[in-house]
Amino acid sequence: MIFENISKVYAAIITIGDELLIGQVIDTNSSWIAQELNKIGIQVKHRVAVGDIWDDIWNALDEEISKADIIIITGGLGPTADDITKPLLCKYFNGKMVVHQPTLDHVKYIFEHILKRPMIDRNAKQAEVPDNCTVLKNEKGTAPGMLFKLDKKIIIALPGVPHEMKWLMGNHILPMIPQLFKTGFIEHKTLLTAGIGESFLAEIIKDFEEGLPSHIKLAYLPNYGMVRLRLTTWGIDKTALNNELFSLFETLKLQVKDYLIIDQDLPIEVAIGKLLIARNETVSTAESCTGGYIAHLLSIHPGSSVFYTGSVISYANIIKETMLNVSHTTLTTVGAVSEEAVTQMAKSVRETMGTNYSISVSGIMGPGGATLEKSVGLVWIAVASANKLVTKSFNFRFDRRRNIELTATNALNMLRAIIVDNS
Amino acid sequence: MIFENISKVYAAIITIGDELLIGQVIDTNSSWIAQELNKIGIQVKHRVAVGDIWDDIWNALDEEISKADIIIITGGLGPTADDITKPLLCKYFNGKMVVHQPTLDHVKYIFEHILKRPMIDRNAKQAEVPDNCTVLKNEKGTAPGMLFKLDKKIIIALPGVPHEMKWLMGNHILPMIPQLFKTGFIEHKTLLTAGIGESFLAEIIKDFEEGLPSHIKLAYLPNYGMVRLRLTTWGIDKTALNNELFSLFETLKLQVKDYLIIDQDLPIEVAIGKLLIARNETVSTAESCTGGYIAHLLSIHPGSSVFYTGSVISYANIIKETMLNVSHTTLTTVGAVSEEAVTQMAKSVRETMGTNYSISVSGIMGPGGATLEKSVGLVWIAVASANKLVTKSFNFRFDRRRNIELTATNALNMLRAIIVDNS
Repeated sequence: MIFENISKVYAAIITIGDELLIGQVIDTNSSWIAQELNKIGIQVKHRVAVGDIWDDIWNALDEEISKADIIIITGGLGPTADDITKPLLCKYFNGKMVVHQPTLDHVKYIFEHILKRPMIDRNAKQAEVPDNCTVLKNEKGTAPGMLFKLDKKIIIALPGVPHEMKWLMGNHILPMIPQLFKTGFIEHKTLLTAGIGESFLAEIIKDFEEGLPSHIKLAYLPNYGMVRLRLTTWGIDKTALNNELFSLFETLKLQVKDYLIIDQDLPIEVAIGKLLIARNETVSTAESCTGGYIAHLLSIHPGSSVFYTGSVISYANIIKETMLNVSHTTLTTVGAVSEEAVTQMAKSVRETMGTNYSISVSGIMGPGGATLEKSVGLVWIAVASANKLVTKSFNFRFDRRRNIELTATNALNMLRAIIVDNS
Repeated sequence: MIFENISKVYAAIITIGDELLIGQVIDTNSSWIAQELNKIGIQVKHRVAVGDIWDDIWNALDEEISKADIIIITGGLGPTADDITKPLLCKYFNGKMVVHQPTLDHVKYIFEHILKRPMIDRNAKQAEVPDNCTVLKNEKGTAPGMLFKLDKKIIIALPGVPHEMKWLMGNHILPMIPQLFKTGFIEHKTLLTAGIGESFLAEIIKDFEEGLPSHIKLAYLPNYGMVRLRLTTWGIDKTALNNELFSLFETLKLQVKDYLIIDQDLPIEVAIGKLLIARNETVSTAESCTGGYIAHLLSIHPGSSVFYTGSVISYANIIKETMLNVSHTTLTTVGAVSEEAVTQMAKSVRETMGTNYSISVSGIMGPGGATLEKSVGLVWIAVASANKLVTKSFNFRFDRRRNIELTATNALNMLRAIIVDNS
């Protein structure tokens, strides 16, 4: 009973901008907003993207307000003529445009002290807001956020620039929502598996899945040859829900233990970072075909300099010889995409960089580069520790970008195996 | 007159999956679909994301069918229990589920010859389809696409796995649409600027913008300190529209010439690649704080091995000494984040890799790593040619990921300048 009889608080996200509808940019804002709302018990029910067109935005507002309690609008608040969201909201909520003095002062301050450029009229326009909204100060930019109330619903307009939107969400919206709405409790537990397909995984945990109570949901999230499994619960009694979720999650972990990478919702490179930090060990990389993508994955997360020393990216073959000690004979006989080459690369970079482990990759990512003997998608990967070296070849059948991503993921999975093995 | 009096063909995209609404994945499919539809004159009017919930999917179908001529649904066609799209579509269009023999043969073939694993019942389920749809063979996976017709509209369901969706779009949907609909002509022309903010750019081209005819639209797309400007036209007379667009685009280029990077909708690294290939020149990189991101940008595009030789990623200081000839004195006095260090790195990597140009970067990306003298966001960048070396420092004020992206973009912009200068 505790899991039912409370009404959920629903949110909707409206993203505004022609660039989204012609595919010129990818919408990363919505995912982030959904994630953050989820953490505080708000379920996003609907996400919609519309162009910079008056009627389309108006209709989207009508629809989402009829469906959700919290409507978050991003985009269309810039200083240029194609941005019509602000006048539209003003009219929608029957307000009139007025100059908001604190915002004007803030915009002036930004131009004088940060941008150090003269301000123009167009920038001053950023300080005009509908008189019936609450203005949300934007410390990261010139366009303020705006909050409108309608019955028991709130409608929030935020700029589309990701770091400005995030700052406004984090400093105004997310702290405010629990005060305005009585939200239920939502919790997710996610684990990451590798080496098994979605349908086979489903077969293994079939009985577990069928036995789940109705307030706990299981989702399969396949990506790059890995599958994440997510359990979600929702309700009021946080303690009871958490206990039940924890116990089910432990059962799930046991059932998939042969394929389990990590029992958290983390990318594999973060899981590896945690392992290395706990063991006080380090890794270096020697990349050819992935061109720095493995290095990028390892170094994008804060704190990675503790376990990651660096990489030699030998995109040209001559660099493999001069900086990674691949023998000239190897390159002229079996070639750069070979077990011999990645073996020499992994050994060399591990020694040169003085790390516990190393990764090396060499392959043909496409669309060009295939030879009579070697087709697009052929990749050799090596991972090395002080006393072990493992090599493996793959034949990926995808486009360049995906081949690069799959090579990186598989190399990291091999690295993880050799670390765990080295105990 | 030629620009009006034709009715536009509208499309809507419905993306299905809880993972989109809790923000666990970013929707890249919709952008791609929108881009491809746009090229053949179809305008996406609406994009919506709903969870794996029967009523929500049903309502989204009702709504989008009432608004658009072409409805493309992605996701929810997998072999697991959380995927309910197929039975829902069957019921929505009053069909009944039947086994589609060619699909069953195809699924069997994939398991026997490609995956080389035994097939299980769950996989065979992929071959069950509503009897009132046209089955679209999916050569990249086991879940087929499905096409339903309703009045003069088409509703298409595709798997959510990006490369499968793309294959089905490219081989079935995109060739079919021009046969079913009389579409107008849409054309975009985009240019990339750097070094000027959106509002200042708007001031420069104010008269141009106000003088645009109503069937030509201008959009500002700011990103990472650069702004793209896009002109869009739509109508019937392709030749007349193209001529007009071409002439306006040339005017626009002239007006922003001081900030123009490239007059195509291309990322800066591709613009640089084209420059280098035309000049038969090469570049190498020495990255510290960006950890391979610049190398990744340069190498992700096909054909980059012609002008890009590689990188030394010296995440650890000792690697700067041993592999990039940064002097011990520099590291112990002014430190790794300094003009001296990036100067030595740029010179060293250019010589070692034997390239015409080089980039080097060193900085503090955050959240950790700040010292008393150097705050998070401080970055030194150097670019070198045979007879020139340019250094510049920046103070970025964002989070780690954005600081890395801004460092890369600015380094590439500096590289572009030194290449253009070197004539």
